[in-house]
Formats: sequence, structure tokens, C-alpha cells
Amino acid sequence: MGGDEALLAALCARLGPRHVLTAPEDVAPYLDEQRGLFRGEALAVARPADTEEIAFAVRACAAAGVPVVAQGGNTGLVGGGVPRGGLVLSLARLDRVRAVDPIGATITVEAGAILAEVQAAAEAAGLLFPLSYASRGSARIGGGIATNAGGVAVLAYGNARDLVLGLEVVLADGRVWDGLRSLRKDNAGYDLKQLFIGSEGTLGIVTAAVLKLYPRPRSTTVAFAGLASPARALDLFAHLRARCDRDLTAYEVMPPFGLDLVLRHAPGTVRPLAGAHGAYALIEIASSRPEADTRAETEAALAEAMAEGIVEDAAVAASEAQNRALWRLRESLPEAQKREGASIKHDVSVPLARLPAFLAEAAAACEAEMPGLRVCAFGHFGDGNIHFNLTQPEGMARAAFLAEWGRFNRIVHDIVHAMGGSIAAEHGVGLLKRDELLRYGDPVGLDLMRRLKAALDPHGILNPGKVVPEAGMESDDSVR
Amino acid sequence: MGGDEALLAALCARLGPRHVLTAPEDVAPYLDEQRGLFRGEALAVARPADTEEIAFAVRACAAAGVPVVAQGGNTGLVGGGVPRGGLVLSLARLDRVRAVDPIGATITVEAGAILAEVQAAAEAAGLLFPLSYASRGSARIGGGIATNAGGVAVLAYGNARDLVLGLEVVLADGRVWDGLRSLRKDNAGYDLKQLFIGSEGTLGIVTAAVLKLYPRPRSTTVAFAGLASPARALDLFAHLRARCDRDLTAYEVMPPFGLDLVLRHAPGTVRPLAGAHGAYALIEIASSRPEADTRAETEAALAEAMAEGIVEDAAVAASEAQNRALWRLRESLPEAQKREGASIKHDVSVPLARLPAFLAEAAAACEAEMPGLRVCAFGHFGDGNIHFNLTQPEGMARAAFLAEWGRFNRIVHDIVHAMGGSIAAEHGVGLLKRDELLRYGDPVGLDLMRRLKAALDPHGILNPGKVVPEAGMESDDSVR
Repeated sequence: MGGDEALLAALCARLGPRHVLTAPEDVAPYLDEQRGLFRGEALAVARPADTEEIAFAVRACAAAGVPVVAQGGNTGLVGGGVPRGGLVLSLARLDRVRAVDPIGATITVEAGAILAEVQAAAEAAGLLFPLSYASRGSARIGGGIATNAGGVAVLAYGNARDLVLGLEVVLADGRVWDGLRSLRKDNAGYDLKQLFIGSEGTLGIVTAAVLKLYPRPRSTTVAFAGLASPARALDLFAHLRARCDRDLTAYEVMPPFGLDLVLRHAPGTVRPLAGAHGAYALIEIASSRPEADTRAETEAALAEAMAEGIVEDAAVAASEAQNRALWRLRESLPEAQKREGASIKHDVSVPLARLPAFLAEAAAACEAEMPGLRVCAFGHFGDGNIHFNLTQPEGMARAAFLAEWGRFNRIVHDIVHAMGGSIAAEHGVGLLKRDELLRYGDPVGLDLMRRLKAALDPHGILNPGKVVPEAGMESDDSVR
Repeated sequence: MGGDEALLAALCARLGPRHVLTAPEDVAPYLDEQRGLFRGEALAVARPADTEEIAFAVRACAAAGVPVVAQGGNTGLVGGGVPRGGLVLSLARLDRVRAVDPIGATITVEAGAILAEVQAAAEAAGLLFPLSYASRGSARIGGGIATNAGGVAVLAYGNARDLVLGLEVVLADGRVWDGLRSLRKDNAGYDLKQLFIGSEGTLGIVTAAVLKLYPRPRSTTVAFAGLASPARALDLFAHLRARCDRDLTAYEVMPPFGLDLVLRHAPGTVRPLAGAHGAYALIEIASSRPEADTRAETEAALAEAMAEGIVEDAAVAASEAQNRALWRLRESLPEAQKREGASIKHDVSVPLARLPAFLAEAAAACEAEMPGLRVCAFGHFGDGNIHFNLTQPEGMARAAFLAEWGRFNRIVHDIVHAMGGSIAAEHGVGLLKRDELLRYGDPVGLDLMRRLKAALDPHGILNPGKVVPEAGMESDDSVR
């Protein structure tokens, strides 16, 4: 019996044979990502029931020298969860919400809990778990933590990192680190949980977490503003932040082309403003204070911005249904873009003050590179995070356009880098941007990353080849 | 010329002789801490002018095998900045505020900038830098970052860690890591800055930082509530958090004995409530929204709490002078305690829901251990962070009381540990709690700490002997 067979036998004995998948049709769903940029391969998929079984599997893999890739809902977009051989460790069976503490305002969850179910458990206790993104119905919280996920509520509540109080982690040698604490202040030694948040399973496997909860908003108002330009959108953001403070819970911006795509492709959507504008902002104002009147607050803030010439026109929702209708304009954009044709995507951030310059410079450079190309740059403007997406020219062959992915990455990322921005703002590095880190990363920082990897996973068992670029690495992981 | 002489000569040549202090009277102020718990020793004190000189000094020390202790305002309380030989590297000359970005809401500072001056620079730009603690007039921001300092604004704004966007760090081999970014979202690789925040100079020396700023409150109201017990204080906190959300910017609690000490020792203080109560809460409600009426909000919230039987009595400030007078009752407590006699101190946190049980259990245990002992447990109740201080029995000799420091630590820390709390909530570990980590720390976590230390400082140059306990270490660092 070869090493792999012995490993699989040991896993079958401990987890039960039906939780060790080897048939190609069973393994297939774990090999690919929704965007289809990478196709992986794996010896098997193990579906452990609890932390002890994960620890067992990691110990067994470490002993056999077989790599382990942890996978949650497999909703990542950068190849971070795609196996390059070895064992896929699915966290799906560790899906319980263990406890909600309404006094401490915390929730304790297993890594495989579905994000929407974590949100629902918080809501059932009268509280809010603010982390939220499009894949919330299938994304699992462990993946959100492992990738330091962002989403639509970062402005007021932070990234996943900011919501984590404690973690339980299986290390590369199969030991379990129990950092499952629920303290708001703890300086008893290095803050070890920070290592694992955002490291995409390359330093340890998150198996459970204690997360922060917040009061639920009693009143929420969404508005949609038409502005002359991204520069005015930045002015409006600065005005709202100063005026509404943390009642400003979302500030998303989309271009006219993006709104056109939504109105064209998303059934039932209606143009929210009569005229045409150079940029559109979706604004959400929310509060849990009983005396808060978020509609009056939103209307007053926008009236001031109009009086100052910042806003050209605005629509303020008057009901929860209207709130949802305005949000739908923003949330339908990725799908509408897909229906319009192929897209080359960038998930980037720049310092807020440079957003208008970045948008102008990057759009001009891309349009000059390929006539007919349509720039659809939208996203979490208030976080400085833009999904700088490029829609193919009309009539161009999909494959021919996507073959230019690397060329446009170079153009856009060069501009981002020159502006002190990040080429991986909220979706992570995975395989997709690993080699870009080698290009743009500071050599000292890359050396620190390699030292951390060597210190915590000296034999390279955990998600090898992801995130951390090797010096002089020749990539075989280019986008297919 | 011996190794030390050669090192000092090299430092003199590079920094200038007047910035390399060796005379005992010049070195003395860098050897001790304000609480006098530790007395250090040092070869010399170097006062570099900039990051390059720091890098030079660290390289020179690394080559000579001489340890380096970075020191800011030397306002720490746990011996983290006390040298045990080697070179003290004072950051005091790197004291500039380099830039304020009002659009990005960031401030870029050098590590030696005085906290109060960072606050003032933010205020001059119409913004708020919320980190604040008693030593703000002499504490330097690099120390606040290196210790992940807490203070009185953590409830709404977080610890120092939560306020850091980017860092520049000199590493153990004298290389400079430039992570001085100002992005709200950045997942391009491991979040390396987290390593250095709160590591007390044992993994690198913070030389500059980009920090978050917030809108300045336009309206602030402070109130002082009398409650039957800490359990009711927790009820009031839960009520205010749910009702006022992030307008609740401080929630501090002190016991009747603490208020008595303040009224006895702090000149000009006046009893804020007519009757006697089992616990007192200081509440701050603040907002930058122009329509906010924080006085009305505070009065309404407290009226509700009274109607529900949570609060016995309350005083709401009607002016900024009254706000300050109420804050003074809380802020005078450490000094009032000092005037009353010697104190044995604990800086601990527990999960919020366990605060009343912790306070009752720890007080009973300490009082049983030494009749006449007076428990003065106060602090950042809303963060679960209590300064569980013990005032000496009246008439007992100071030294005899302080000789019991370790015995009371054991009693209090055992209870904290059993409740899933932290024995080092906001002041850090330094020397004072290093061996306590060995006792209470999870062995896997301690191993991870040692691996990080070995990975980033393999020759033990940076602040050796601090924070990270060695297995089986026999401490010679007991409190004198």
C-alpha cells in the first residue's frame, strides 16, 4: 500500500469512509471556483466532523508529506481554495453557531457556518453581525476570516479582521491553538489570531471563532445620488462622513455605464433619477438610536450637498422596499456585467484622496490600449476599494479578450502601485495575485512573509503555493 | 578597544557624541519607570535623529551582539521599556507629525511624537485622534502602538491596534520594513503590521505610523450614575449600548470607596450625587451629527433606565465645564489612590457578562486574605477591563504590604484565568507579567510566540527577556 493509500485508509478509519471522497464526480465540485479561472486537482476530499478530526487529518497529511487545502463555501475568487494536489479539507460539517452572548455582544461559531446563518443567529438575538457580501448564502465564515473578507459594511464595521475576538486554529503539525476568547482587551502576549486572519489557510486552519456583534439598526435609509464626476463623489463622501459620522454605513459608487448595464440586464430595475450624471453614489444611513430619523438625516445631508453644488440630483427611499430597490441597482451590477460579456477584473484600493485621479488615469490607459473596451469601475468607494472591471468590446471574441488579462493587470496595477495602493484589496491573493506580489511587494515584506510561513509551516503542508511568492518562482499558475 | 567601546564609538561617529549618553546622570532617567517597580541598567542611551540612524544603531548592535531596547515617553507600567543591559534607543527625536490627510482621514506621525501633539494636530485639521490616556502629555505614539495601548476611548474607537493603518519598522537585523500605507482595505499578503503592534519592541522597532482619524464630536454630554451594584452597572451598559450605539463613547465604573478616595484627596472635587450607592458609572455620549442633542439623548436614556429600576440616581452635565468636572472624578482616582497609601495593582479583563461575578469573587478572596485590605476596582467597564487595585490596610507598613504583590497576583489572576479573562488587558506584559504568561498561557500559544520571536529576531537583539517567557525560566525579574 503506497503512502497515499495508507493516508486515505487512515482518514477513512477515523472520519468514516463516506466522509473521504475520492470518486472524480464527488471531488469535482471542490476543484474549481465560480469564476472558472483555475482548475485544481486533489487526491481526495475529507469532510471532518470536528476540530479533533481536522487535527487528525492534518497530522496524518504532515506525516505523509501531503499538502492540505482548507475549503469553506468555495466562494473565493482568487484561487486561494483551489487544490494543487493533496487533500481538500472541507469545513462544511463544522457548521454550528455554538452560542450567542447578548451581554458580551459576541457570537461563537464553527468555521463552516454559513455567513447568512451567522447573520440570522445574531438577528434572532436582536443583534447585528455586519459582515456581508454577495455570496452570503453559501460562503462559510471560516473562509471570510481566512481571507479577511470585506463587503458592503466595511465602512462602519470594518473588515472581517475587525470583527474577530478569538480563534481556534489547527496548526501545520496538527496541534490545536485555543485562542477562542471573547475579550475586548487582551494584551497578554502577541496577538496570535492576527496571523491567521487573512492568511488564506497558509499558516493554520481556522476551525472556530468568537465574533463581535452590534446593535441592530432601528432605522435605515438608502439614497441614490447623481454627481458630475468621481471627484464630486469624493466630496459627497467627505461631507457625509463628517456630518453623519458612523450613521453612514455604506457609500458605494458606480459609473453611468454600470447603471446602464443594470437597467439593461437586471429585470424590474428602474432608473432612479431622471437625468444623466457622471457618477452615481448609493448611500446608506442607519442607526439603532430610537430618536434617530434616518430619512430626515439623509434628506438634510443631501440638501446641504446640493446647496453646495456637490450633488446634481438625488432620490431618497421612503420605505424598506425602496431601500431594497436602490440596493438592487448596486448589487445587480456584477451579474449584469457578466451578461454583457467577458470581464477582466481588478480588486484594488488606493488612498481615498487619489480615487478620482486613479479612476481617470486607469480608464484612459485601458481605453487607449484597446479601442472599444468599456471600463466599469465600481464598488466600495468609501473604503477606497474599486472593482476596476473591464468589459469586452462589443463583438469581440470572449477568449481573445480574456487572453489580455495579464496585459491589463499590468497597466492597472502599475497605476495602483504608483499611487501607494493595494492590488489585492478585499478578495485576497490566492494564486491569482501571488506573482503580482513578487512584482510589487517590498522585498523586506516578502522576506517577512516567507519567515512567517517557514516558522509556522516549516514543511509547507498548508495550502502550498498560495499567497507567498517564492523568489525567482516561475509561475505555472497563470489564468487559463 | 573592547566590543562595547567600538560600538559606542561607531554610534558617536554616526549620531554625534551628544546623542550618545553614557554618563550615569544622563542615563538614569531611562532606567526606571514611574511606578518604580523595576530598575534597569544600560551601556548607553542613543538618541537617533531618524529612521536611518535607528537602522544603523540596530545593525551595529546586532553585529556586536548588544541588545537594544526602544523607548518612547517611558510611561509604561510593566517594565517593557526598562533596559536589562545593552543600548536604550530613545525615539524622542523622531517627534514630527509628518502629514494630516483630511480627505483620507489619516495622520502620519513619527514614533516619538507626543500623544497630545498627535491629538492636537488632528484637532487643528478639524478631526479627532481618539487614542487617549492619562500620560498623553508625555507618552509617545510609538510606545502606544508597540504596547497596543487602551485608555478611555476604546469603547467607540478601539485599542491602538484598531487605529493603525500603516507602519514603518526597523527589524532586528537593521533592515527597514516600509509598510507606511494609508489604505482602509489591503489584503495583499499577510498583514505584517499586526506583528509589531503590541509586541513591545521585541519583534521590531516602530519608527513611523499612519493612523486613522475620525470626525470630531460637535456635542458631548457626560453623566454620572449611582447604581445599587456592579450587576446594575452592567445592565445600564447593555441598555446604553443598545440605545445609543456608537454615541456611547465612554463607560467607566468606580466603587464607592474609589469615589470616597477622590473626594478626600483630589482638591476641588464635589460629590456628584446626594445619596450613597453601590457603584458609580461615568457615561459619555458624543456625536458629530449637527442634529444630535447629546444632553437630551443622555437624559432620555437615563430616564428609561431609572424607570426600569436599573439606575438609582444620576447627574447629567449641562456644560463643558460640568463634563470636565465629572471626568475629573474618574481621572483623579489613580492619584487619589496613591495618596491613600501603597497599592497592589492588576490590569485585567473578563468577558463582559462575568464582570459582576469577577468583582465579587476577587474582592471576597482578597479581603479574606488580608483583613483591612481595601479593594479599589475601577476602570473601563464597557471594555470588560478592570484595574483591580488593592489599597493597603490603614496603618500597615508600605513595604510589608507591597511584599505581598505576588501573593495577591496569584489570587486575582487565578480567578481571571478561570473566567476566560486576560491578566494583561491594556498595559502589556513587559517584565511584570512575563512569568505569569508562562503560568497561564496556553503552551501552544507560547510556542507560537517563541517561533515568532525566533523568526524575526533570531539572535535575541530586540528587548530580550520581555513579553516572551522561556520554558523553565527562573525569573530574576521579580518586583523589587
